[in-house]
Amino acid sequence: MTDKQQRSLETVKKIDKEVTLLGHIGATVSWDQETYMPEGAVEGKSQQASLLSKLGHQRMTSSELAQALSDLGADDTLVQEIRLEKGASHLPQDISISEKALIRSVYRHHSRAVKVPEKLVTELSELGARAQNAWVKARKANDFPMFQPYLEKLVDLKRQEVQAVGYEDHPYDALLDEFEPGMKTSEVTQVFQGLRDDLVPLVKRIADSPQVKDDFLERTYPISGQESFGYKVLDALGYDMKRGRMDISAHPFTTSLGSDDVRITTRYAENYFKTGIFSIIHEAGHGLYELGFSPDIKDTGLATGTSLGIHESQSRTWENMIGRSLPFWNHFLPVLKQEFPGLLDDVDTKAFFRGINKVEPSYIRVEADEVTYSLHIMLRFFLETKLITGEIQVKDLPELWRQESRDLLGIVPETDSLGVLQDVHWSFGLFGYFPTYSLGNIIGAQFYQVMEKDLGSIDALVEAGNFGPILGWLRTNIHHHGSVKNAGELLQDITGGGLDAKPFVAYLKGKYSGVYGFS
Amino acid sequence: MTDKQQRSLETVKKIDKEVTLLGHIGATVSWDQETYMPEGAVEGKSQQASLLSKLGHQRMTSSELAQALSDLGADDTLVQEIRLEKGASHLPQDISISEKALIRSVYRHHSRAVKVPEKLVTELSELGARAQNAWVKARKANDFPMFQPYLEKLVDLKRQEVQAVGYEDHPYDALLDEFEPGMKTSEVTQVFQGLRDDLVPLVKRIADSPQVKDDFLERTYPISGQESFGYKVLDALGYDMKRGRMDISAHPFTTSLGSDDVRITTRYAENYFKTGIFSIIHEAGHGLYELGFSPDIKDTGLATGTSLGIHESQSRTWENMIGRSLPFWNHFLPVLKQEFPGLLDDVDTKAFFRGINKVEPSYIRVEADEVTYSLHIMLRFFLETKLITGEIQVKDLPELWRQESRDLLGIVPETDSLGVLQDVHWSFGLFGYFPTYSLGNIIGAQFYQVMEKDLGSIDALVEAGNFGPILGWLRTNIHHHGSVKNAGELLQDITGGGLDAKPFVAYLKGKYSGVYGFS
Repeated sequence: MTDKQQRSLETVKKIDKEVTLLGHIGATVSWDQETYMPEGAVEGKSQQASLLSKLGHQRMTSSELAQALSDLGADDTLVQEIRLEKGASHLPQDISISEKALIRSVYRHHSRAVKVPEKLVTELSELGARAQNAWVKARKANDFPMFQPYLEKLVDLKRQEVQAVGYEDHPYDALLDEFEPGMKTSEVTQVFQGLRDDLVPLVKRIADSPQVKDDFLERTYPISGQESFGYKVLDALGYDMKRGRMDISAHPFTTSLGSDDVRITTRYAENYFKTGIFSIIHEAGHGLYELGFSPDIKDTGLATGTSLGIHESQSRTWENMIGRSLPFWNHFLPVLKQEFPGLLDDVDTKAFFRGINKVEPSYIRVEADEVTYSLHIMLRFFLETKLITGEIQVKDLPELWRQESRDLLGIVPETDSLGVLQDVHWSFGLFGYFPTYSLGNIIGAQFYQVMEKDLGSIDALVEAGNFGPILGWLRTNIHHHGSVKNAGELLQDITGGGLDAKPFVAYLKGKYSGVYGFS
Repeated sequence: MTDKQQRSLETVKKIDKEVTLLGHIGATVSWDQETYMPEGAVEGKSQQASLLSKLGHQRMTSSELAQALSDLGADDTLVQEIRLEKGASHLPQDISISEKALIRSVYRHHSRAVKVPEKLVTELSELGARAQNAWVKARKANDFPMFQPYLEKLVDLKRQEVQAVGYEDHPYDALLDEFEPGMKTSEVTQVFQGLRDDLVPLVKRIADSPQVKDDFLERTYPISGQESFGYKVLDALGYDMKRGRMDISAHPFTTSLGSDDVRITTRYAENYFKTGIFSIIHEAGHGLYELGFSPDIKDTGLATGTSLGIHESQSRTWENMIGRSLPFWNHFLPVLKQEFPGLLDDVDTKAFFRGINKVEPSYIRVEADEVTYSLHIMLRFFLETKLITGEIQVKDLPELWRQESRDLLGIVPETDSLGVLQDVHWSFGLFGYFPTYSLGNIIGAQFYQVMEKDLGSIDALVEAGNFGPILGWLRTNIHHHGSVKNAGELLQDITGGGLDAKPFVAYLKGKYSGVYGFS
């Protein structure tokens, strides 16, 4: 490495660190907004958030950074190759793996940021705010045409963004890449189509079986008891409260206010037990990932989930594969019964397990069970990819939504509020994000299979409340690396291959034949 | 105003707004640090705080800003003249009063920031962190020599800062000016000496009177009841919880996370009632000031207390003159008794009033009553002014402290931990700040006198729980202006004169002759 390159590497590190700290600061402002902010402070918070994102963007697009990256030989190969060593062949070779990965990470953000004209960024952000407002009203009034012109303009701007960013194969790749770097639309489409062919008959099979009872979940669970139980679960899973917190917000989320400050939130419903605890376990899955990055990459852009799909694999493994398993409740139901004396005397573990795993096609994604959930995602993915290519038009969305819902879930929402208007995402231009939810289910099951091969029976560990080896395996194989390995590398290193829905399908079939008693 | 000046004014406004928002963001980070942050996050928070203060400093010292200020004709006259109109004679005359005041405010911060070399700022901040650490240990070990070399170096650096900033009359002016713009050391010295001559005999007189009983304050007041009572008081005073919050922290404080987000904190002691409630009323006084700025100056550098003395006048008026008055407890003692049924059956309002106003010379400033408090401040002021001139040496401080304490308070601390090592301020180089605490007492009594002339009996309003007219008067005459008027102008406009301790002394003599039954 030349002296000049040495200085350029320092520049990259310095700017990355500032952007990372600005990100933590922005997370602090957002966390406050969702938890403790007095209601009058909305406008001020949004100005502060804008300023922070402007400062981050200025640094990421600075000519100083462009020059430093160019001096270091960074180019598109870095992000096109799955393997870091291969993509980094033009970089100085006498730097460490994590320095190469850092250059890749900064280059990826920088090159996307400089490609999208500032005018377009501003237009998107301004329209997004107004469109979200219109969406709230339209959903309330069940009036899609009220929202339609906003969504049309948003789709138009996203198509401009696609052109600015560029793509090789499919226009949607340019959007997907922001959340799932390296993943291609064609691959997702293929995997989702296979998954659909397995899930649709499985849902039908379940619907034709005798239904499970879950009315005990609607008894009165005082919130203080739910909270106390939640902390016990977090403690057992290994969530370090010296480096985190749990609070309450309208929508549960996980956020990093620092490398040693990863906070989760939940919400409780006194008469619906599932809401609180499964949000806690889900967010804990995200949080444990963020708490598990190697100290070497602390306060760098590498101390972040390597893709949203990988992130979601962590939350869904803990929430569904572990948290909704029979052995988990063999361990925790007695604890829960102590928390709510007398309330569940007539419910045994099997009945509890079956109740929390009730499957039922429903209109609303966020309330869906883990079997139908992916069908909700496919519906959105199939529609949003075609919106971006121009194959379908915004005005036809309500009808297309009903058709897809009939095909995938076997039910047709009676209103647009229960259909195309249900999600906030599109209302501020968030396209390319939805599929990562399902990728999480798929990847989670792939990892779980390997983990079981390495550790032996996971069920036995969970039943014993011995979560340490599980967290240890996830830390070593996944968390530790942060974004040093990209999602493709991680998948390859752990499973030896690529995205594959078979383990997820096998897990669902195995579990739900038990819950519903078919073979 | 020329086109160029128009653009320069826009520049000043733009930079001021960014610096203001960065200040609110920094306040968010600090608030979080003092309230909800998990313990592991300390290092990250301090990095974030440094970055934010660096970004603010960069903007305040930018050549763009220097050029804009120069185009507008800003010069030292602006800050040397007490009256804005007089100081602003070189500015364009076709701009508004608040634009002139904004230029003055930005010029003041800018010119101070560019005068102090960055090297000195860094040295002070780095040494400050280490010195504070050493102070914690020295105080614990009652070992002044352990702290002495740090304090010597800090005093040396502050003397360098004084040289860099410059002064006309007294070196300490350069430090005082940061917290109390326009105030001169000579004026403070003169007023403090007069105040001392009144207070020392008053304290003696009180000590010679029969003592009051206050043991009922040490009964058990469950914290939830103290909190509930605190919210009732805040509500009565007019603290708008839609634009604020109250939380718990180790040391009570007030902070603005936005123009519509002013938060206070308190701390409770279950067996010492005074701690919680008087912290709440004190901080509410600061908070009501910050909540009362005119909407015209929202999110500008003018939406801030115009000096620390003025700020402290608000907190001390509410805490002491109102909150520790007989009519206040005529109104609130029945409410308090409802909160703690049976606990105070044997205590009537007079006894309660006397108990909370017990005067006793003590070693520790933060625990002092309102009569002896100012003597604690004078002790520090007399010593720190002489440290800055070089008349006294750091090594002699422990002995000088004991001498001053004997002269002012009539008691001599047995250890340095109870003496010269008790306060955190000097340990990170905070010189020039202490006198503002007492200025608050003095100015508060000056304002109160005028308010009473305008509103009639304040006692009658307080006794009726009718705080609206009081807050209204403070808003109109003080809060509303923010920093549009500087402290000197405000004092002149309200009282027709300058700093004067007579109203404060008269208030103390009147009140304590009642409490202690002398005439």
